[in-house]
Amino acid sequence: MAIIPITDPTDARLADYVNIRERDLVGRQGKFVAEGRVVLNVLFSSSRFEAYSLLVLDRKLPGIADIIQKLDDDFPVYVVPQSVLDAVAGFNVHRGLLAIGGRRTAEDADAALSALPENALVLCLVNIANHDNMGAIFRNAAAFGADAILLDKTCCDPLYRKAIRVSVGAALKVPFVHVEDELEMHMSLSRFGFTQLALSPSGALSLRQLNRTGRTALYLGTEGAGLPGELMAKMTTVRIDMRQDFDSLNVATASAIALHHLYG
Amino acid sequence: MAIIPITDPTDARLADYVNIRERDLVGRQGKFVAEGRVVLNVLFSSSRFEAYSLLVLDRKLPGIADIIQKLDDDFPVYVVPQSVLDAVAGFNVHRGLLAIGGRRTAEDADAALSALPENALVLCLVNIANHDNMGAIFRNAAAFGADAILLDKTCCDPLYRKAIRVSVGAALKVPFVHVEDELEMHMSLSRFGFTQLALSPSGALSLRQLNRTGRTALYLGTEGAGLPGELMAKMTTVRIDMRQDFDSLNVATASAIALHHLYG
Repeated sequence: MAIIPITDPTDARLADYVNIRERDLVGRQGKFVAEGRVVLNVLFSSSRFEAYSLLVLDRKLPGIADIIQKLDDDFPVYVVPQSVLDAVAGFNVHRGLLAIGGRRTAEDADAALSALPENALVLCLVNIANHDNMGAIFRNAAAFGADAILLDKTCCDPLYRKAIRVSVGAALKVPFVHVEDELEMHMSLSRFGFTQLALSPSGALSLRQLNRTGRTALYLGTEGAGLPGELMAKMTTVRIDMRQDFDSLNVATASAIALHHLYG
Repeated sequence: MAIIPITDPTDARLADYVNIRERDLVGRQGKFVAEGRVVLNVLFSSSRFEAYSLLVLDRKLPGIADIIQKLDDDFPVYVVPQSVLDAVAGFNVHRGLLAIGGRRTAEDADAALSALPENALVLCLVNIANHDNMGAIFRNAAAFGADAILLDKTCCDPLYRKAIRVSVGAALKVPFVHVEDELEMHMSLSRFGFTQLALSPSGALSLRQLNRTGRTALYLGTEGAGLPGELMAKMTTVRIDMRQDFDSLNVATASAIALHHLYG
């Protein structure tokens, strides 16, 4: 790696790191921000993503010797004091360790689905716009071995900084593909022989009664609005039993309960 | 109710609402802040808590006619323009509806536990310091009918503003009691005939193998440190099976999976 000390927060080499709290790099330059040791280790071991540079607080440099010694000779490691880090990032970066990453490969739903095993489990997300929920769903998907995640266009990007952080790196682990809408998801999954299920508080079948067989896809919608009726009419709807006087679970929490049931 | 328009953000009657984003009212004056219609409805229907006043954005007043018409004649409803609300609260309060509440009754672990039914389910929280996790655990506890929650002294207060909000009011629904430490919890629960279980990634028993019988208490510790070994040695430890290569679940997510299994 190339250790590059920088003391000027306006240095052009730090442009990707400017004001990362407010900016969503994804969609503008095809790049994302990864934070902290755990996420960085996932990024560096990924076959689908690559790192372009590292920004590290000066006093944190000794603590990441194990990470940076594996990097290519010309990989840039920018080293800055706390004042420069905070000025560039736009907030107080406690962990003092950031990276800019990007995709190695283009995404394609059919290619992703055709590569999955016979007992594959896929999550289908419709209108999940909250970054915390998105990150938590990926974390749960990784914990319970979901093979891929499909997202409709109204979902937020899992590569948004906060979603990656909440996912503890799982947004870089579990393969995901953006699809036009839930009807296109349904057609693609049908082509590849998936049993499709919709999770809904009004589901016909209790999750406890559900037995997973073969390739399975589980749709999750947003709290409140839920999944479109037209979509639910096409498949078995599944509910999580809970107290009648309670409104509903958080969608990421619901994903964890369903994934745990379907796991193993 | 008494509708009281206020245009001066320094008006003494608004003192409880000043800078609520930064202040934790609980512990200083025994009061808490409730936000939004759903949480307010829980507060107004609670036997354990009471409301002292309401602060509402002027344009939101017509929309809460159903709530305020049930209030006593002298219950103060402070009505303010957006600029005053934001200046008082210290941030942009989107929902425009806040209340100050407090406890009606003192808490006592033995009194709470002795009142529980024969098949009661109690959560025991050890060192849960994050307000989001605390709120989410209460939401899950309400969804799956936990009868009470015990908290050790290192837990944050469930009546902190953000915890109440994340709980969607469940922090005002599920009875909870602060206890000195987990060893005192264990002694109290033993006196009242509870089977005590510790949730841990290294648990001896898979959650799937667990059958709930009689009064049950489930201990949850913080991610990372987990529950104290001395405590776990006293009871059956239970694990949530997941992929070996994955670190761990969020503690609130783990609570949901365990509560769903123990429910019904």
